[in-house]
Amino acid sequence: MQTPWDHRYAQRTQRMKSSAIRELLKITSLPGVISFGGGLPAPDVFPVEEFMDACQRVLSTQGATALQYGTTEGYLPLREMIARHTARYGISVSVDNILITSGSQQALDLLGKIFINHGDRILVESPTYLGALQAWNTYGAEYVAVPFDENGMVTDELEKALRYGPKFIYVLPNFQNPTGVTTSLERRKHLVELADRYGVPIIEDDPYGQLRFEGEHLPAVEVIDSEIRGSDHGSYTGNVIYLSTFSKILAPGVRLAWVIAPAEVINKLTQAKQGADLHTATFNQMVAHEVGRGGFYDKHIRKICEVYRERRDVMLDALEEHMPEGVHWTHPQGGLFLWVTLPQNINSAEVLVKAIERKVAFVPGEPFFPSGGGENTMRLNFSYSTPDLINEGIGRLGGVLREYMGTSKVLEYK
Amino acid sequence: MQTPWDHRYAQRTQRMKSSAIRELLKITSLPGVISFGGGLPAPDVFPVEEFMDACQRVLSTQGATALQYGTTEGYLPLREMIARHTARYGISVSVDNILITSGSQQALDLLGKIFINHGDRILVESPTYLGALQAWNTYGAEYVAVPFDENGMVTDELEKALRYGPKFIYVLPNFQNPTGVTTSLERRKHLVELADRYGVPIIEDDPYGQLRFEGEHLPAVEVIDSEIRGSDHGSYTGNVIYLSTFSKILAPGVRLAWVIAPAEVINKLTQAKQGADLHTATFNQMVAHEVGRGGFYDKHIRKICEVYRERRDVMLDALEEHMPEGVHWTHPQGGLFLWVTLPQNINSAEVLVKAIERKVAFVPGEPFFPSGGGENTMRLNFSYSTPDLINEGIGRLGGVLREYMGTSKVLEYK
Repeated sequence: MQTPWDHRYAQRTQRMKSSAIRELLKITSLPGVISFGGGLPAPDVFPVEEFMDACQRVLSTQGATALQYGTTEGYLPLREMIARHTARYGISVSVDNILITSGSQQALDLLGKIFINHGDRILVESPTYLGALQAWNTYGAEYVAVPFDENGMVTDELEKALRYGPKFIYVLPNFQNPTGVTTSLERRKHLVELADRYGVPIIEDDPYGQLRFEGEHLPAVEVIDSEIRGSDHGSYTGNVIYLSTFSKILAPGVRLAWVIAPAEVINKLTQAKQGADLHTATFNQMVAHEVGRGGFYDKHIRKICEVYRERRDVMLDALEEHMPEGVHWTHPQGGLFLWVTLPQNINSAEVLVKAIERKVAFVPGEPFFPSGGGENTMRLNFSYSTPDLINEGIGRLGGVLREYMGTSKVLEYK
Repeated sequence: MQTPWDHRYAQRTQRMKSSAIRELLKITSLPGVISFGGGLPAPDVFPVEEFMDACQRVLSTQGATALQYGTTEGYLPLREMIARHTARYGISVSVDNILITSGSQQALDLLGKIFINHGDRILVESPTYLGALQAWNTYGAEYVAVPFDENGMVTDELEKALRYGPKFIYVLPNFQNPTGVTTSLERRKHLVELADRYGVPIIEDDPYGQLRFEGEHLPAVEVIDSEIRGSDHGSYTGNVIYLSTFSKILAPGVRLAWVIAPAEVINKLTQAKQGADLHTATFNQMVAHEVGRGGFYDKHIRKICEVYRERRDVMLDALEEHMPEGVHWTHPQGGLFLWVTLPQNINSAEVLVKAIERKVAFVPGEPFFPSGGGENTMRLNFSYSTPDLINEGIGRLGGVLREYMGTSKVLEYK
């Protein structure tokens, strides 16, 4: 149907693509489909009771404030709580270095808005987080893709890539979306050192860092960078912008995240946010703060980790049991995802069509590669489904793959 | 303090200005200052009890859904409720024509994102809503300013302006921010007719339309346009994109608004929103829907109108009593604002500095004019302060003005 708006779209709108996969994945919300496709936290670990109590307390004592307009920077007590919380992970900043955003996706969008000119190159891991590419495509970003392996970005390839003059480097060092891979300490140090030498700043996206089930916590890239630079009287002036979120430690349905950056960058982001949505919902910020009083988040993170560890283990065991020869997968130490690599000639998007017929779904890996590749990969989410469904779903997926790959479990063990 | 990010800002970031007035108005939140500066609803009319009950019901019956990720388009039952609600104002659309946004500011930003190329001209009322200019400046918009009087946009000047080839026309027909002026029915019809003749579409921003205290409701520009075009089996394909919000009829602290547009525009906006913040908080949408069951909004709007009418009347009486000769103001039939015009040679930004010393504040009018002018105007908000404070504040402001204008109440009546 023609409307007067049809020929009036901006050039950047041409770069917003409706994803065929997104359309396909809509099917996965139908009853009976076991979906490993979304990046959804387990609803089982939503702290509904605590959240409900916090709503009551906030509204009964500060209702007029909670429902009113707020400042663009965010609710001060929540920013103070975030400063205390991140300090325990070695990230030592003041409230002037913190902006509350409406989810991490907004942080990515605002960073694109203030930094990316049309044609600017952004250096990314390959594969990388799809949402960042979606946000930055509209600002006309080009990508320099650096190879990524089981230890993170292959920093030996980084120096060559830095000569393309990227505006910044974008990394997800902990339990990366999509692969679940954690960047090693050695690679983190190498990254910081090269970025410093070439004068190229870093955006560190860390939505899952606190969800570590096993192994030692590794220092954030921000922390390694700060150690090189030395402290500047508590105000952060370093090379790294750090993002994290309440989506995985509280709930995504409240749309709350934060950016840590030098104060001047926070000022610019604040101006951009003012034009974008004025501020993040006051009520949600006050409830997230109220929920967090008395150390709730630390306790709750331990609970989430228990649940997710079990689900990861169930998925790893099920993959071991059901996947045909030639299929490999990552063993994440935390987070929500693992990454499956099929034999070279197997196209995972074609597998998805078959899988949906058998009522099981995943996300094909190819869209996560900014310059193509990965047609034989897939991302599996292990946080959302219960252990029983994980077993059942991986069983179905194994069946689809064995059939599609023209092999069978029996044949393998001949 | 220098950081590695300093020289990396995008060109558009230069167009984000930190407003001197905004800095000045921060002072107005200090105790003792009576501020007519903000656009804040009266906290007295926030339905805190109903909101609290709705939180309880949503979390106790659908907690796992409310705290989870949701669809970018918005919570379907809320979109259905909006469709029913707007139908009573003559705007007859289906849910495919409705997108939920994180406040109307986000709707303005997303519209800028999908429609405005650098250098595009937007036809606006002069003065117009500052937030729209802020959102669109970052996309490189230029403005064609059409004069505005006590009957709205002077449509006799519109045809000349349309020859500049604007991408779209932006209007606020009801109780306009900043002036409080309602565009007359005759002007609305003339606007629709000219826009249709020149093939230029319209964005109608209507945050206050339901808050009418007196006089007859006038049909929305969207409705007049639809009447010209005729219905298309319930799916809206017209020339007008219509914006409204829950900020004034429920509470701004929940950040909920909506866009009504042809389905294809909604698709593009949805893609843009996905990159901008994924979706608007599920919990907030479900609570707004739950609050609204059983016709709450209609009842509540009547209550708000009673409170605001009283405050408007108090302000009009106080202005009559305290303003020196030569000062004029609008008599809005609804909304949150009225507009004061000082004698030509009086600069309202200078008056503001004096006013703040006397602990009363307002917004100088000049920033609302996209191509300059209005230095002798100011916007006064009458919704936020109680009647006593309105009397006291207007008294103070009258004193400041009499002093500044070198005249006195006594002299006037000699």
